[in-house]
Amino acid sequence: MAEFTLIDLIRARATHGRDDVVLGIGDDAALLQPPPGMQLVVAMDTLNDGVHFPPGTEAAQVGWKALAVNLSDLAAMGAEPAWCTLSLSLPDGDPAWVAGFLDGFLALAALHRVALVGGDTTRGPLSVSVTVHGFADPGRALCRDGARVGDSVWVSGTLGGAAGALAQWREGRAISPALRERLERPLPRIALGRALAGVASACIDVSDGVLADLGHVCAASGVGARLELDALPGADLLRPHFDGDALRALQASGGDDYELCFTVPATKDATVAAAAAATGVTVTRIGTGVAGQGVQAFDSEGRIWQPAQAGHEHFSTPAPPAARPL
Amino acid sequence: MAEFTLIDLIRARATHGRDDVVLGIGDDAALLQPPPGMQLVVAMDTLNDGVHFPPGTEAAQVGWKALAVNLSDLAAMGAEPAWCTLSLSLPDGDPAWVAGFLDGFLALAALHRVALVGGDTTRGPLSVSVTVHGFADPGRALCRDGARVGDSVWVSGTLGGAAGALAQWREGRAISPALRERLERPLPRIALGRALAGVASACIDVSDGVLADLGHVCAASGVGARLELDALPGADLLRPHFDGDALRALQASGGDDYELCFTVPATKDATVAAAAAATGVTVTRIGTGVAGQGVQAFDSEGRIWQPAQAGHEHFSTPAPPAARPL
Repeated sequence: MAEFTLIDLIRARATHGRDDVVLGIGDDAALLQPPPGMQLVVAMDTLNDGVHFPPGTEAAQVGWKALAVNLSDLAAMGAEPAWCTLSLSLPDGDPAWVAGFLDGFLALAALHRVALVGGDTTRGPLSVSVTVHGFADPGRALCRDGARVGDSVWVSGTLGGAAGALAQWREGRAISPALRERLERPLPRIALGRALAGVASACIDVSDGVLADLGHVCAASGVGARLELDALPGADLLRPHFDGDALRALQASGGDDYELCFTVPATKDATVAAAAAATGVTVTRIGTGVAGQGVQAFDSEGRIWQPAQAGHEHFSTPAPPAARPL
Repeated sequence: MAEFTLIDLIRARATHGRDDVVLGIGDDAALLQPPPGMQLVVAMDTLNDGVHFPPGTEAAQVGWKALAVNLSDLAAMGAEPAWCTLSLSLPDGDPAWVAGFLDGFLALAALHRVALVGGDTTRGPLSVSVTVHGFADPGRALCRDGARVGDSVWVSGTLGGAAGALAQWREGRAISPALRERLERPLPRIALGRALAGVASACIDVSDGVLADLGHVCAASGVGARLELDALPGADLLRPHFDGDALRALQASGGDDYELCFTVPATKDATVAAAAAATGVTVTRIGTGVAGQGVQAFDSEGRIWQPAQAGHEHFSTPAPPAARPL
């Protein structure tokens, strides 16, 4: 299938009801009308076959996740999503794969009123790059550098489920449906992020594990953090399949959950609870900002806990097995 | 080398003097302040190893070209470039390769005052995705759908040089330095595009060959075009190495030149000449908009000429030889 036919296929499906899209797919570039007075928030993330998803992952799951990890970055900024562009590299131009991909991608786009306005298709190893655009009120975007000593540290949803599914897959075990859902259908916490804009002092999305990601917040903010391991949410989801240190490591260091980890002045804890209730997302207080640097995790007996591995980094993590479908 | 060290390396080099970048590399997303009243112009293009550049291409050339093909899309819209994001997939995290890549990428970025504000690095087959952002005055952006019967058809610079270098490489011949320059260092025609905003009736950049790209303009505009083959610029560059139909095919169907092909009402031909003179770019009138559809190319004796191949399309063009450096 030729490139232009693929683009026509994508263009025909990329409908949207946004009147700030002056010109979408089909020209050299998209023309967009940003709202007056707002800041533009832009993030770009790529998923590669066999690195960010196992070979043989269903096309619709790849499509959902490629947009989800990008929208999660907008959520972590407290931004309102608006537009995205998509670059698809495909080993062949299989229209059935692209149709499945669009099923997942556009389903999530519709949930958040995101218009697909441009991009390209090319031949190459399977890879999906997405750029997302959103808006934030000046001065209210959530950055990483605002955490202070005494702030409460919170996290949304549950931790470790996505990494649990990957662990089951790596070990050749059956994958629990509940964990698979966490790996394949992450829910970007857009509504919660927007409710936290102007409330949280710092925010990040949990893509590399909460220990590592909270560490980025601490480094940017010039503070340390104390993390209470037993407070980390998600143990109920994991306990049928994992226990002891393995369970703890999944919660503290497992990546790919795309929850929000954020800090707030302790005086605003009630506002956080209200934001969570209003957006239907559970939030859990998991620690405190402290003087110093780095994150120290404590077990229920007050002992410092060290993970075997500090968090997920590409280039330093072995690839998953090459050719076994999930 | 770990992902975060690579990002630090990129961040340290991505300096810029733009005060509309509120927050650049280093958070979950970039924060940008669009100028009031302007439209945002967004394009995204990916280059894959062995598809868009031959294996073994110097890192600096890949960096230059990855940004150039994107800026060329902004040029074709008549937009003023501002910001870009970069997603780099690398088989390993070789910092020397990344440093070379940034040499080329940032040299071109500096020429056009483009700030690199975000993106990611991942492990995977070598691939470079770039998203560029620019501004256009409402109603003045150059689209593909405005060509009319009687319009003059123009092209900037020369045609066929990049394809000539690729042909020499495919045939195992020595590559002429002048042609290699056209392939590896395309110059996005930003200044000319901006000068044509509000003047040209339609515009596209020549990435797939002028016959194919002018064909896209005709299809979008609902007109046909008559192209005078002997008027196509660039023969002097090609004649030492190619002749006859091979030369003609390179000029009419060779891709990768990243010149602008545009249409203007014939009454504005003098304005085009003035825009070209003001921006130091040669322009050549190569044809006329006519009633009907599609592009017909005529030789000097008035005969219709048919290319052996209509233009470059990924997925339908054989890949270049796999492992021979350029």
